[in-house]
Amino acid sequence: MWAIAPLKPRTENPGMMKMMVSDLKTEKRFIRHLVEKRTQIEEANAQDIADADVAVKAGKLSSSLFKRLDVSGAKFDTLLKGIDEILNLPDPIGQVTYANKVAEGLDLYRLTCPIGVLLIIFEARPDAAVQIASLAMKSGNALLLKGGKEAQRSNAALVTAMSAALRDVGLPADCIQGVDTRTEVAELLKQDKYIDLVIPRGSNELVRSIKDASRIPVLGHADGICAVYVDSKADLDKAAKIVVDSKTHYCAACNSMETLLVHQDVCANFLPKLAAALAGKEDVRYKADPVCRPHLPSGITEPAQEEDFDTEFLCHTMAVKAVASVQEAIDHINSHSSGHTESIVTEDPVAAEAFLSKVDSAGVYHNCSTRFADGFRYGFGAEVGISTNRIHARGPVGLEGLVIHKYRMYGSGHTAAGFSGASPEHTFLHAPVRGVDRVEDIPQAKKVRT
Amino acid sequence: MWAIAPLKPRTENPGMMKMMVSDLKTEKRFIRHLVEKRTQIEEANAQDIADADVAVKAGKLSSSLFKRLDVSGAKFDTLLKGIDEILNLPDPIGQVTYANKVAEGLDLYRLTCPIGVLLIIFEARPDAAVQIASLAMKSGNALLLKGGKEAQRSNAALVTAMSAALRDVGLPADCIQGVDTRTEVAELLKQDKYIDLVIPRGSNELVRSIKDASRIPVLGHADGICAVYVDSKADLDKAAKIVVDSKTHYCAACNSMETLLVHQDVCANFLPKLAAALAGKEDVRYKADPVCRPHLPSGITEPAQEEDFDTEFLCHTMAVKAVASVQEAIDHINSHSSGHTESIVTEDPVAAEAFLSKVDSAGVYHNCSTRFADGFRYGFGAEVGISTNRIHARGPVGLEGLVIHKYRMYGSGHTAAGFSGASPEHTFLHAPVRGVDRVEDIPQAKKVRT
Repeated sequence: MWAIAPLKPRTENPGMMKMMVSDLKTEKRFIRHLVEKRTQIEEANAQDIADADVAVKAGKLSSSLFKRLDVSGAKFDTLLKGIDEILNLPDPIGQVTYANKVAEGLDLYRLTCPIGVLLIIFEARPDAAVQIASLAMKSGNALLLKGGKEAQRSNAALVTAMSAALRDVGLPADCIQGVDTRTEVAELLKQDKYIDLVIPRGSNELVRSIKDASRIPVLGHADGICAVYVDSKADLDKAAKIVVDSKTHYCAACNSMETLLVHQDVCANFLPKLAAALAGKEDVRYKADPVCRPHLPSGITEPAQEEDFDTEFLCHTMAVKAVASVQEAIDHINSHSSGHTESIVTEDPVAAEAFLSKVDSAGVYHNCSTRFADGFRYGFGAEVGISTNRIHARGPVGLEGLVIHKYRMYGSGHTAAGFSGASPEHTFLHAPVRGVDRVEDIPQAKKVRT
Repeated sequence: MWAIAPLKPRTENPGMMKMMVSDLKTEKRFIRHLVEKRTQIEEANAQDIADADVAVKAGKLSSSLFKRLDVSGAKFDTLLKGIDEILNLPDPIGQVTYANKVAEGLDLYRLTCPIGVLLIIFEARPDAAVQIASLAMKSGNALLLKGGKEAQRSNAALVTAMSAALRDVGLPADCIQGVDTRTEVAELLKQDKYIDLVIPRGSNELVRSIKDASRIPVLGHADGICAVYVDSKADLDKAAKIVVDSKTHYCAACNSMETLLVHQDVCANFLPKLAAALAGKEDVRYKADPVCRPHLPSGITEPAQEEDFDTEFLCHTMAVKAVASVQEAIDHINSHSSGHTESIVTEDPVAAEAFLSKVDSAGVYHNCSTRFADGFRYGFGAEVGISTNRIHARGPVGLEGLVIHKYRMYGSGHTAAGFSGASPEHTFLHAPVRGVDRVEDIPQAKKVRT
């Protein structure tokens, strides 16, 4: 039975915990403990896979989910390498993001610090558990992990290994806990006093149901209804290449293209070219408007319905629509997209700038595939998810999305009253302070260390 | 009747709107229109004040609320000056906060942009309506404003003047709208598709009830249960001055001290000194633990109950407790405080650093008054509130709290598939790009302008 222990990291202050984590290289211990328990983890994983295999054969589980379950062999090595990469990222905690001399002898610093306790709900991908736990530890956060039930044994084995690593370095093993059932999740969603952020990775329905059930802030990783717009000034070969990649590189991902918008002047030239490029791919289907339909292969093309432009297909089906201008493309996207990632293909820099500045999505691209919307590809090392929220973090969320800040102020007896009256004791200067980039650079903090 | 027009700014894209706002100096028009309508605004305000006067005399309204209602005369001039100050702040939109050369010919930029549509619920302070609207316009956000009902006529007159300013510069007048009733607020809280952030300024109950009623993210400006800890190594004169200011400079504010913690070794010396310093103040009351009680004036001191340490008194009453160590003070604060602002008074830098690093509050201070927790005092020009949230914004929230970011990526036909395979077309570089501080510096965007 899961216990209400997330309280513990909070009262022990995530900030301190981070210092311990950093000092003791917990992430290295993670690797050691995972290696030591490799046999147990792979055995648990084999059991999950065996069960899933039965379910796939009975038509109860998708093969794409099945593929993601495996963490054995080479995948285990990749997983270890991933932890190592996260370990080598710069420390996200203790960065000074605002330094101001408020008055003579009164200094203000804003420092990054952990958010606190995170509840992460993710799909049946045991490798995600390890990646997320590494990011959480690197950023000094405590973590409650609920993975897809198909990976339950694998996740339990991984959490056991990671908790042992924590205990090994003198941290509460409770800093990482597994959550097994939906009933437990429902209970946890009520604990807004102890849990600071919920990150659900999954469908819009999952994200909405969690928002309905909880006062805890939610960082939703939800559907991606991404569009590519092929402009009248597009290089059509480039456009075909980008659309093929955006749609078929990994169609189950949220950053894959679902909607294709084509300038009406190039429909006749572009669409047959695209169809030819996609001819070798399995299960390609077009749901096209009347302008585009004649230019697409008849056997696999059907009339688009209004709702097709609001659908995340997650397969090789796409909705196709002709537009009369870049502005019409922008308007379509701002009405229909999920605000995830959109790309314009054009050789006209003016059209590109209009698209990038007016499209209101987390990612706006020029002449490249929507598939780049990803924490690793953005250079963050890894990600906990991709946010379509409009506060805190938007787009791929790496370590930066797992931190918040606190303000330190150092005075020498300063009072607010001292700044007012006929002859005030102090006056506001509000002068930026240069050269203080990390907590270690704060002069008052330095004194203690040396 | 209020119309679902916030949709409008969203589809017109707040980013573009901001550019228009910036170009056309809407804030200057704000000032002009407020000056032009000064007579009407002051008349409306006089009516609100007359009604409130009756309510105060009938004992139905507090005098502190009454005082905040007035926006006439010199207060009107202060209000205009405030807009001018916000106008002169650096542009918070279009700042580049991440610039990365992902691969040869593939560049990534993260740019600040408006959040979108904000719903702000605030107390009966008409000056707050103007300050918040100025911050929202400066950051390119559309705004729904619900003020306290006692200021309804003043707010309506102010919103009319500000809408006229918007229309004057060719922006939709709907970008600022007043919301009159709680029924309308309840309706708006369901519009998570159109409203991006709710900022309620008020009690914990208000914030909680809004979180319960809505999926929209909430930036809560709630109670402040702030503590001052007087350490064994404190300069006791300095400590008395800081405690007097923290408690009595403006006791109705959320950044005022409610809990006083005193190291047991200095109770006998410090508490009589404090009582002497507070002797001239009205209605001072102590709720003290058994160790502190003997050292405080008997007539105005009573035994502290457990709940007194979880209470926001908002008057000259304070809860007083002796602690055996800085660690006990830290533990007390992390269990009882609302995570707003806490201060340690000590001449011992080691104790100070322990307190600042381990206390888990938005503001942690050394040798100064808790009253400094304020957007203006922090150097932000103004504030929309003080957040005790642990995501997005924490502490006083200025313009930075009203923006989010989007990512722009510029490629030349790049695909994700191009980075894999036996002989990949591209390789990841992930090299930081220097010298791109604002959207105007992005080389691809520059080309269009010149």
